[in-house]
Amino acid sequence: MNRIVIFSGSAHAGLAGAICKRLKTTLSPAVVTRFSNDCLGVQLQANCRQADVFIIQPLVPSVQEHLMELLLMLDAARGASASRITAVMPYYAYARSDKKDAPRISIAARLVADLLATAGASRVLTMTLHSAQVHGFFSVPVDHLNALKVLSRHFRQRRLKNTIVVSPDLGNAKAASHFARMLNLPVAAGSKQRLTDDHVVVDAIVGDVDGKDVIVIDDEIANGGTIVEVLRKLRERQVKRIVVACTHGLLTGKAIERLRAQSDIDEIVTTDTVPIPRDKRLPNMTVLSVAPLLAETIHRIHVGESVSRLFDGEE
Amino acid sequence: MNRIVIFSGSAHAGLAGAICKRLKTTLSPAVVTRFSNDCLGVQLQANCRQADVFIIQPLVPSVQEHLMELLLMLDAARGASASRITAVMPYYAYARSDKKDAPRISIAARLVADLLATAGASRVLTMTLHSAQVHGFFSVPVDHLNALKVLSRHFRQRRLKNTIVVSPDLGNAKAASHFARMLNLPVAAGSKQRLTDDHVVVDAIVGDVDGKDVIVIDDEIANGGTIVEVLRKLRERQVKRIVVACTHGLLTGKAIERLRAQSDIDEIVTTDTVPIPRDKRLPNMTVLSVAPLLAETIHRIHVGESVSRLFDGEE
Amino acid sequence: MNRIVIFSGSAHAGLAGAICKRLKTTLSPAVVTRFSNDCLGVQLQANCRQADVFIIQPLVPSVQEHLMELLLMLDAARGASASRITAVMPYYAYARSDKKDAPRISIAARLVADLLATAGASRVLTMTLHSAQVHGFFSVPVDHLNALKVLSRHFRQRRLKNTIVVSPDLGNAKAASHFARMLNLPVAAGSKQRLTDDHVVVDAIVGDVDGKDVIVIDDEIANGGTIVEVLRKLRERQVKRIVVACTHGLLTGKAIERLRAQSDIDEIVTTDTVPIPRDKRLPNMTVLSVAPLLAETIHRIHVGESVSRLFDGEE
Amino acid sequence: MNRIVIFSGSAHAGLAGAICKRLKTTLSPAVVTRFSNDCLGVQLQANCRQADVFIIQPLVPSVQEHLMELLLMLDAARGASASRITAVMPYYAYARSDKKDAPRISIAARLVADLLATAGASRVLTMTLHSAQVHGFFSVPVDHLNALKVLSRHFRQRRLKNTIVVSPDLGNAKAASHFARMLNLPVAAGSKQRLTDDHVVVDAIVGDVDGKDVIVIDDEIANGGTIVEVLRKLRERQVKRIVVACTHGLLTGKAIERLRAQSDIDEIVTTDTVPIPRDKRLPNMTVLSVAPLLAETIHRIHVGESVSRLFDGEE
Amino acid sequence: MNRIVIFSGSAHAGLAGAICKRLKTTLSPAVVTRFSNDCLGVQLQANCRQADVFIIQPLVPSVQEHLMELLLMLDAARGASASRITAVMPYYAYARSDKKDAPRISIAARLVADLLATAGASRVLTMTLHSAQVHGFFSVPVDHLNALKVLSRHFRQRRLKNTIVVSPDLGNAKAASHFARMLNLPVAAGSKQRLTDDHVVVDAIVGDVDGKDVIVIDDEIANGGTIVEVLRKLRERQVKRIVVACTHGLLTGKAIERLRAQSDIDEIVTTDTVPIPRDKRLPNMTVLSVAPLLAETIHRIHVGESVSRLFDGEE
Amino acid sequence: MNRIVIFSGSAHAGLAGAICKRLKTTLSPAVVTRFSNDCLGVQLQANCRQADVFIIQPLVPSVQEHLMELLLMLDAARGASASRITAVMPYYAYARSDKKDAPRISIAARLVADLLATAGASRVLTMTLHSAQVHGFFSVPVDHLNALKVLSRHFRQRRLKNTIVVSPDLGNAKAASHFARMLNLPVAAGSKQRLTDDHVVVDAIVGDVDGKDVIVIDDEIANGGTIVEVLRKLRERQVKRIVVACTHGLLTGKAIERLRAQSDIDEIVTTDTVPIPRDKRLPNMTVLSVAPLLAETIHRIHVGESVSRLFDGEE
Repeated sequence: MNRIVIFSGSAHAGLAGAICKRLKTTLSPAVVTRFSNDCLGVQLQANCRQADVFIIQPLVPSVQEHLMELLLMLDAARGASASRITAVMPYYAYARSDKKDAPRISIAARLVADLLATAGASRVLTMTLHSAQVHGFFSVPVDHLNALKVLSRHFRQRRLKNTIVVSPDLGNAKAASHFARMLNLPVAAGSKQRLTDDHVVVDAIVGDVDGKDVIVIDDEIANGGTIVEVLRKLRERQVKRIVVACTHGLLTGKAIERLRAQSDIDEIVTTDTVPIPRDKRLPNMTVLSVAPLLAETIHRIHVGESVSRLFDGEE
Repeated sequence: MNRIVIFSGSAHAGLAGAICKRLKTTLSPAVVTRFSNDCLGVQLQANCRQADVFIIQPLVPSVQEHLMELLLMLDAARGASASRITAVMPYYAYARSDKKDAPRISIAARLVADLLATAGASRVLTMTLHSAQVHGFFSVPVDHLNALKVLSRHFRQRRLKNTIVVSPDLGNAKAASHFARMLNLPVAAGSKQRLTDDHVVVDAIVGDVDGKDVIVIDDEIANGGTIVEVLRKLRERQVKRIVVACTHGLLTGKAIERLRAQSDIDEIVTTDTVPIPRDKRLPNMTVLSVAPLLAETIHRIHVGESVSRLFDGEE
Repeated sequence: MNRIVIFSGSAHAGLAGAICKRLKTTLSPAVVTRFSNDCLGVQLQANCRQADVFIIQPLVPSVQEHLMELLLMLDAARGASASRITAVMPYYAYARSDKKDAPRISIAARLVADLLATAGASRVLTMTLHSAQVHGFFSVPVDHLNALKVLSRHFRQRRLKNTIVVSPDLGNAKAASHFARMLNLPVAAGSKQRLTDDHVVVDAIVGDVDGKDVIVIDDEIANGGTIVEVLRKLRERQVKRIVVACTHGLLTGKAIERLRAQSDIDEIVTTDTVPIPRDKRLPNMTVLSVAPLLAETIHRIHVGESVSRLFDGEE
Repeated sequence: MNRIVIFSGSAHAGLAGAICKRLKTTLSPAVVTRFSNDCLGVQLQANCRQADVFIIQPLVPSVQEHLMELLLMLDAARGASASRITAVMPYYAYARSDKKDAPRISIAARLVADLLATAGASRVLTMTLHSAQVHGFFSVPVDHLNALKVLSRHFRQRRLKNTIVVSPDLGNAKAASHFARMLNLPVAAGSKQRLTDDHVVVDAIVGDVDGKDVIVIDDEIANGGTIVEVLRKLRERQVKRIVVACTHGLLTGKAIERLRAQSDIDEIVTTDTVPIPRDKRLPNMTVLSVAPLLAETIHRIHVGESVSRLFDGEE
Repeated sequence: MNRIVIFSGSAHAGLAGAICKRLKTTLSPAVVTRFSNDCLGVQLQANCRQADVFIIQPLVPSVQEHLMELLLMLDAARGASASRITAVMPYYAYARSDKKDAPRISIAARLVADLLATAGASRVLTMTLHSAQVHGFFSVPVDHLNALKVLSRHFRQRRLKNTIVVSPDLGNAKAASHFARMLNLPVAAGSKQRLTDDHVVVDAIVGDVDGKDVIVIDDEIANGGTIVEVLRKLRERQVKRIVVACTHGLLTGKAIERLRAQSDIDEIVTTDTVPIPRDKRLPNMTVLSVAPLLAETIHRIHVGESVSRLFDGEE
Repeated sequence: MNRIVIFSGSAHAGLAGAICKRLKTTLSPAVVTRFSNDCLGVQLQANCRQADVFIIQPLVPSVQEHLMELLLMLDAARGASASRITAVMPYYAYARSDKKDAPRISIAARLVADLLATAGASRVLTMTLHSAQVHGFFSVPVDHLNALKVLSRHFRQRRLKNTIVVSPDLGNAKAASHFARMLNLPVAAGSKQRLTDDHVVVDAIVGDVDGKDVIVIDDEIANGGTIVEVLRKLRERQVKRIVVACTHGLLTGKAIERLRAQSDIDEIVTTDTVPIPRDKRLPNMTVLSVAPLLAETIHRIHVGESVSRLFDGEE
């Protein structure tokens, strides 16, 4: 078996460190340079020949910078004769651009998948893609994990009687209903309309939420606009205890102030696929780590053990 | 401008004829042969050099035979020096295999998209893909039409007061809610679980359907199992007038007997993306033709006019 | 060395079983599903990560179904991170479409070779292609075995004095003359014209067959039309003992009744590259197994030993 | 329609000139340079932007030099933004390497086809490939002409009573039998074994040649070894008038002295797909020009008319 | 001829406007969006079907943002069925990463060339690449203009007696010597060593500069470090009048304050391949426009006229 | 680890032998055949399955023959299921065609890089490319060695006081200045203009050479024209001891007589990347072997050790 070599771009050093610690491996150094004309350069500082290389880089803001770093690292590893190169992207930001809902736009989730293959990715490891179909945009093998198990394990410790799972959007309700089934709970969904990227309206809540405790679950929380909107509608329906959960806690723009302003949120549960700096960690926020899951998966990919078995049983 | 040449495989000669009639063009002949070892052969019997070739072939049963025919025709057109080749697939059956919901399966919607490109398709024209993301599986330009406008025009002539649109599945509810918005109606959705391909269970109807007239809308009706199941649940909620609508009326297996057995269905509305033989045309069935829409789109593709503009305004 | 994993499509479970038995390996299960819209799905039910995967599937009728199964299995194995994937096609049906003998047809043997590579085949193992050139249609490495050694070993036990080998067709006479040389016999050939796929005429027999025992050898017998026709001509030349041999005993259409009607055929010798059900096994038919040859070749491919050496010496 | 621009490499300026004359077009200049380190360079000296470019270069000796010239010209034309580039190779020398008849050799006919596509050929025009299957080695559209019509037109003016067409090799007998049918003559074939490239043995003549006039026809005559050998065998069968015909008159090595030594050859008929210098033109040699056929085909390719129709009727 | 459609990314609207004005064409609108998760989206707002599309976007800071914009626009144009798509990059920033001068780095100029092709660029129009070889990194046709003619025309109006052209770097001296030849002047060069991206040392000036007027010419001025360093060395050699010239006036970081501090610079001449805002325009700076040159070239590309002819004669 | 198998084409058997001796490996036989129509064929005569194959073939004259041999060997190794194939080209002749310095020419260094990949090269090992950028023309990983260390080690044993390194050409001065730095010497450069391939003029020597000992260094000496020309100019500047050095001693055309005629050359130092037959070895010529360097590099590539580390320290 070829040796494993793990690099991290500059997007999320903490997660890379936690993964390597778990794998009892050293993170190999990579130096990122910005040239005076604003171009980026990356040097991998460990021998890659015939190695099984993993490059950890979630596509978090600044997305374009982090994407370019990743592309440069993939190309460098390929040029350095790596035997296999896995792009580990716990958050694949462009997954949201997964369909052509207006004329003459790019389905960027497909484009970026192609760019990664062009740059040298021989496989991809990612988590909770915005839609399951995005898996099919990649021409290289993908291991697509989800964090629902990590999240559900957290909630199973809570009292869930009289609770309903709420998806803010019908279009995403499938994942929520899967999550609900894991917790043996009913499901409801908002009928959301996106007016602009920053302005959504939830017309109605479809489902029986009145007087219930709710767990509002979404794949990601970016600026928090959708959450605020669905909470507004839920309150009209006299819901009781409110918990908000997501896999990708991006918390961009006014997200933190918006969430802080919703004083009736009991708990915000998210994971560390995206780095959450101290100042964004609200008192009612719980951050669950996906590092153990990613480390175990990387190990299995490396030694050739089944990854799907990881998700058997419980789910 | 290069001349237009239109061929049809053996899947749906009727639709091809209707399109050509509308375009005031002759359908060019193509002869399909089955060799004694069961291999297929196709000869295109019109000069294709530098022509703008369209090959009409929805992937209806026998899907594998029709797919192979299409691949052979694409390859033949390319080898015959066509300038541009559009695969016109009003029904792209493999779209349903759009995600990896079990380990070690093929995302066949992506695979078939790649096969079509390998065989020579330079572009694709299709309708109402099972999910919007399937568009992104193609590496060639795709014109993805939907039949919602054709269907909604039909319903706008009906009395719709007290009516609600019902999606049998939360996973598909987005299209239903789009359709509902076109008719200015509310939306509800079933919470569906697929036990096997032929056995689905609808746990609950999410939304306020009690005592309403319903239009149950889905992208396709294959063996009708889902429809029967959602109707069962809807009756528990005392719905009144029941209408069933879909784009692709495959009506395979026991579909016809099942639908006939649901005596309370007021009307079944579908289109002719899939051929519906006489004996499957139930008395309460309305088949709307997509030939005018496809003809207009082919014309615009050929002359280089905007196709998106076709869908402006009304929707 | 990576572990070996062998799957079989539904085309010829018997052969796959015999190969695995010989290799002292278990055949890994693969489940084929037909969805209600007639699409196929396949799930490989053994871990493929970093494995040396072989998928056994001769392209026998129903050719299109079996081809699609194979494409789905290749894609699934690739997506499941197999290290190397060999498509084992003891009979490659589309090899007969190897040239452009009419305008605007597909050279389907090349097209299907490209489809297999698109779906994920990293190599191919096949037998007795209709013409040796078809090997060059594949962009991936091919091990092309022939069954002449298996067949000639059979005939060497027979009395061959006064015998001549007859190719039904000048276009195929090279293989026959190679076979004749293995048995130290002279060769003759029919001058065949194909009027339609099912109707051939043999104008003349070129060569000195009068009063001889004949072994008529062809790569495949499909509906038997060519054999019947060449026998008619041979009888005009007062041949004596008649033996018919081929690698691929497809025996489609009226083949069995036609062969049964030729009461003067002493023996029909074929192999099991194609499954031959009980009811097609005529009393004068001998079916030789290629399983030992395929097993030995798969073993050599897997461990990296020379395959060509298998054919040294004797031939 | 884009304008036509025709270049010629240095392989066969005479043919290129004849084609252009026929097309009433000027041959555009291309300058070939040999650098001091033996590398070649080619500059196309006419604007190629958006042009329909044809580059005429049969792969005659020195094959490697002429091939590299052609690759450089294709790449230059592509880099110069030609709209379409057709490699016109009246003689495709590597077609003879069309199968893997020994382990660990290249099927060079496929390799060179891929090299041409890599260099920028968007299509190919060629003549009388060694085997019809070589057509399928190309991934780009091919127009594959044959010279049988040109040759048969010549022979139809001769007295052919009591004449038989002889293929030196069973493996090639199909083309000979096609030619025979065009002249309404019977066919025979040699049973050839190639010991080395320069040493063949014809074991026997299969067919009824005794006392007949013969037209020995082959696709190409290189060093003439095969012809000499088949004539030796034919004389044993007391044939009368001997005519030798081929498409590609390479006449390399000792071919001329060998043919001159066969004093009983009545006529040698060939075409100008390959340049035949004065000193190789034996007194009994007739060279038919394929320039009119190539010019007409180039014209049809350029304007988008059917090429197959060129071969209708007569054949 | 297909119609021309020109878009501009957000990198340099001014240049795009000037080019369109010159071409008497309207710039078609394109709307760039930044989503709440920092992903970019672009919508082309003019029909592209069968159009000859040009997208103007120099890769100026923020390079990564502008590159991603360009990739999205290319992909959108391809998906919208453009007939041909030219990426117009008057400044190709990544050209500087053109070799592997350290282990395990990416040759990013090649990588980005591949990314552009993957995204859909069918051709590229660029100016003054850092090295001429970068042209060869593209797999699509490139029109590589240089601004030396624009610059030399400016200097020809000056008094140049006793003037010498100085390249700051031997590695770049070829372009400087070409420029010198256009002005009929001698050339000298600095022997530069790059310690870090922002720290270079010029060991020595190779050539006879003592007491001369100098034109220091480089392809680009980024942070101005090299210029300051070469001027320091030149002053040691008692040069007189100092003029600084370059094609790409990036003027990043401390460039402006550095240049302002060199009070003995008589004139700084640059072009507008890169946008130079008001506040960077020093009193002694002359900005020459390349818009006429780009407009003329785009016109010639569009109508299929020779671009090389543009550079004949004068140079 | 897969076993190593090394083949050599016919370009430089001596070097291949020396490398294998150093590696304590046997050179595996490969038989090159020239067919009667001038096509080449190569048979690799050792099992390649799953092997780590290296094919040694510098592109020395006859370049086209040797290139085609190499392409055939690569394709044969791929077809024979080699696991990895490295093209070892100590001299990559086409590197000189690295830019488009005239309209409508091929950048042949890129074209040939693409041809090698098409033929099956999975990686390349080469030395002293004409320009460092040529590395980026390859889409496969490249190990690019330079011989400067081999050369400098030789000169370090000499007395170098009062010595200056001279590059004949400003365009190449970077490598010379790197070499000078290794020896702690100053550098000068000729201002060269190429009138034709065989006719260059050196206008002037830029730098302080008067009265110095000179080491004129270039990447390659082909016909020696440039060297003669720069020596002419150097003599005008009263240089003293003259030494000429290069990596690639091609010595084509009149090179030997030209160099012999320069009676004041003290020593000519070159390497054996190119075979130098006895009769070209002038009395004042020293040929240093690169075999140890190539052997060590091949070993490191094979076992996966860092190659860059080979060049650390000293340089």
